[in-house]
Amino acid sequence: MTVLILTSEQDVTADMVVAELNDADVPVVRLDPADLPGGVALSGEYVHGTFRGHLSAGGRLVSTSGLRSVWVRRPGVPAARVAEPSAWLTEESSQALYGMLHGTHARWMNRPDAARRARRKPWQLRLAQRSGLPVPATLITTFPQAAREFAERFPDLVVKPVSGTHPQEPPRAIPTTRVAPDADFTAVAFGPTLLQRRIAKLADIRLTAVGDRLLAARKPAVPDADDVDVRFAPPSGPWQPADVPPRIAAAVRAYLHQAELAYGAFDFVEDADGIWWFLECNQSGQFGFVELDTGQPIARTIAQWLARHGPGPESRPAGPVRVTP
Amino acid sequence: MTVLILTSEQDVTADMVVAELNDADVPVVRLDPADLPGGVALSGEYVHGTFRGHLSAGGRLVSTSGLRSVWVRRPGVPAARVAEPSAWLTEESSQALYGMLHGTHARWMNRPDAARRARRKPWQLRLAQRSGLPVPATLITTFPQAAREFAERFPDLVVKPVSGTHPQEPPRAIPTTRVAPDADFTAVAFGPTLLQRRIAKLADIRLTAVGDRLLAARKPAVPDADDVDVRFAPPSGPWQPADVPPRIAAAVRAYLHQAELAYGAFDFVEDADGIWWFLECNQSGQFGFVELDTGQPIARTIAQWLARHGPGPESRPAGPVRVTP
Repeated sequence: MTVLILTSEQDVTADMVVAELNDADVPVVRLDPADLPGGVALSGEYVHGTFRGHLSAGGRLVSTSGLRSVWVRRPGVPAARVAEPSAWLTEESSQALYGMLHGTHARWMNRPDAARRARRKPWQLRLAQRSGLPVPATLITTFPQAAREFAERFPDLVVKPVSGTHPQEPPRAIPTTRVAPDADFTAVAFGPTLLQRRIAKLADIRLTAVGDRLLAARKPAVPDADDVDVRFAPPSGPWQPADVPPRIAAAVRAYLHQAELAYGAFDFVEDADGIWWFLECNQSGQFGFVELDTGQPIARTIAQWLARHGPGPESRPAGPVRVTP
Repeated sequence: MTVLILTSEQDVTADMVVAELNDADVPVVRLDPADLPGGVALSGEYVHGTFRGHLSAGGRLVSTSGLRSVWVRRPGVPAARVAEPSAWLTEESSQALYGMLHGTHARWMNRPDAARRARRKPWQLRLAQRSGLPVPATLITTFPQAAREFAERFPDLVVKPVSGTHPQEPPRAIPTTRVAPDADFTAVAFGPTLLQRRIAKLADIRLTAVGDRLLAARKPAVPDADDVDVRFAPPSGPWQPADVPPRIAAAVRAYLHQAELAYGAFDFVEDADGIWWFLECNQSGQFGFVELDTGQPIARTIAQWLARHGPGPESRPAGPVRVTP
């Protein structure tokens, strides 16, 4: 039984996991959907109620019935490397590849449709609330008046993009920034704006969830209230392993179960009372920097999850549908 | 409790359903996501573990907790009508709108993530097989040799796009076409190709599923074997209402349940033995032409589904997640 890894050629994070799988003698096929058609080829046959599929990459041929899991790491856009790329060929190739893989019994980290849904920030906030995670008071609005009233109730606010993505091409990260006390919210009408109560933080927390395994790391904050975004703050020492409070662990597992995710990188901030406030869950978040600082075996944990036999609790039941005529 | 319809301004199919909802005195808000931000505004507040959201369109304000259902008909691309459109603002607006709506208890026809998954043709074929629907022998491949061997086993083949979409901009439908007996399959290596055993058909069948209600229509085929695609065949008289065989009805319901769809337009062909062969299920297929020919009350059935109270069997459970600390 083979582990299939969908990612681009340059991906040291995937390299770490592949090394672990090699050490454990687990067969791996790694391919980039950008190479389909071309270096990657596929074939799937639907005859007499059964399905037989094959994938070929780098000279290796694997049967889709022999896949134990699929790791969607950083896959390229299907058909991106053909001589004459087109949106149409990308759609054809994407449907052929993912449509075929979805028909198998393989376990996913993460299923593309669950991953897509899980990227929506407002959905994350609501699910975090329902799962029992503390969420800082947040407003997403295009009503300037709603923004003004919110700022009156919560005078110490930060603003960040709704999607967590970046308006520039090539992408550039926008730091989360504090809202000035005399801010003019008129421009809110021109684009949905996310305002959030600023948590006076003692530390940033990164919790990496791999199946049921939770690995948390903590990094003390620099005592300068203006640096709210850890990515842009001055260095404050390395990440250190941290224990996960039992209530948080239960809530994180509930979140992942409801989101149908096998992997998630949760960002929290810790306040003076020791409360972990949920900021976001990135279903494809990097983990190499945490592993490097803390020595936590995240790559090995992912490899173990991928290597496990049988459908996981995270995967959608793929067996035959019972028909009662 | 209000029905929310997401669609473009010009949509006579939506008009038909709105008329039915008006007749039944069911409040309706209809909006085009392309008008957000602008004519459409929204606000969502996440405070103390609760969520309160509002949408405004055409001078009407509706609370998201007052939505009974959302019909995703033909929505425009979010932020498409702003002065300076950008991919970034589209993503921000899309996340704000759909992320917020996904946090509500409203029933969906259809949920966007389920709809997206359901568009993949190879996934459809596999699900149809598992649901117990007869599927003509099909091959999707980039291996010329696999195509040649398939053509030897099934000499009478048709070819069609994997995605069902069209390579041209503006889009142009590609008819499903017969494969010549001496076809050269070398080009298969340059793009995934779908080959399917041609069914010698007596009739085309369109089955429209609305929740548990199934409405089928039949149109006799013109006896000219080269016109395999009903969209391009010469007229052969109107669609006529047809009874759904019990086994097909059970299989279609199993398909919809597994696909988490509340609406689907199934295309079958009927052979000389009366067997309905599954071709595809379009989760946003048109129904106006069938209603016009057959007089079947499809618009009213959709209106009734949308007007129903309480979460439907098709909607994902949205209640609080149980956390055991």
